[in-house]
Amino acid sequence: MNQTDSEEAIKTLIESRAQAVRDKDVERLMAQVDPSAISFDVVGPLRFAGADAARRRAQEWFASFAGPIEIEIRDLHIEVAANIGYCHSLTRIGGTLAVGMKVDMWVRSTVCLVKRDEQWAIVHQHTSVPFEVKTGRAALDLKP
Amino acid sequence: MNQTDSEEAIKTLIESRAQAVRDKDVERLMAQVDPSAISFDVVGPLRFAGADAARRRAQEWFASFAGPIEIEIRDLHIEVAANIGYCHSLTRIGGTLAVGMKVDMWVRSTVCLVKRDEQWAIVHQHTSVPFEVKTGRAALDLKP
Repeated sequence: MNQTDSEEAIKTLIESRAQAVRDKDVERLMAQVDPSAISFDVVGPLRFAGADAARRRAQEWFASFAGPIEIEIRDLHIEVAANIGYCHSLTRIGGTLAVGMKVDMWVRSTVCLVKRDEQWAIVHQHTSVPFEVKTGRAALDLKP
Repeated sequence: MNQTDSEEAIKTLIESRAQAVRDKDVERLMAQVDPSAISFDVVGPLRFAGADAARRRAQEWFASFAGPIEIEIRDLHIEVAANIGYCHSLTRIGGTLAVGMKVDMWVRSTVCLVKRDEQWAIVHQHTSVPFEVKTGRAALDLKP
């Protein structure tokens, strides 16, 4: 697999995960997450160690939305060499929470991958919003 | 340079950056940041595009502390292959702000690097704290 093929494979993986979020399909979302993956998520705790913890968090997150989740990926940048790769992007999350509140926020996303047996697997993911120093509040209304 | 040497070089780079933070030495902190680096920081905006933006942010951050900045890196995990690498860790930041408030917080850190001309350069960095859904506040009191 050459570098362009690897970039294309990672791009496809990221798009497949976005579709899994839209469909609230936990198993598809988790299909390419390594059992050992360390996840830093937009909400606490500080980290989710392992795929099982990430799966429980995804189930909880999907359940917190009343209907489908909107997701839009912008400025996806991919670097890859040999059996290692990473990418970052800005991602818009939208929808209506089960508690009735509308969500429309941009998050920052970094995903790190390794290739084993010709398959790319996510070994680390970091998703966040910045906070405002003056108020100590998460900045949920920023636009790229 | 073999894989162990590359891991060692990245570990040294991360430790050198921690020391640059303790010393509030902006130029040393920025020495291995690529001009094109995209930074997602713990505070807004969503991103800082390029090393110049990251440098201005670091100057502002250092100036916000009255004295030295304490920094402690835990659970540093490095992956490297060929001319690409990344690492993640939990990092404690401590000290006293110029406005008098004590800071003692843990952040999540992801750093992505490429090697050019036998030198590792940071092309992406992502630092954050999670937020609490119920309050909308940044979670500044979490411990690993």
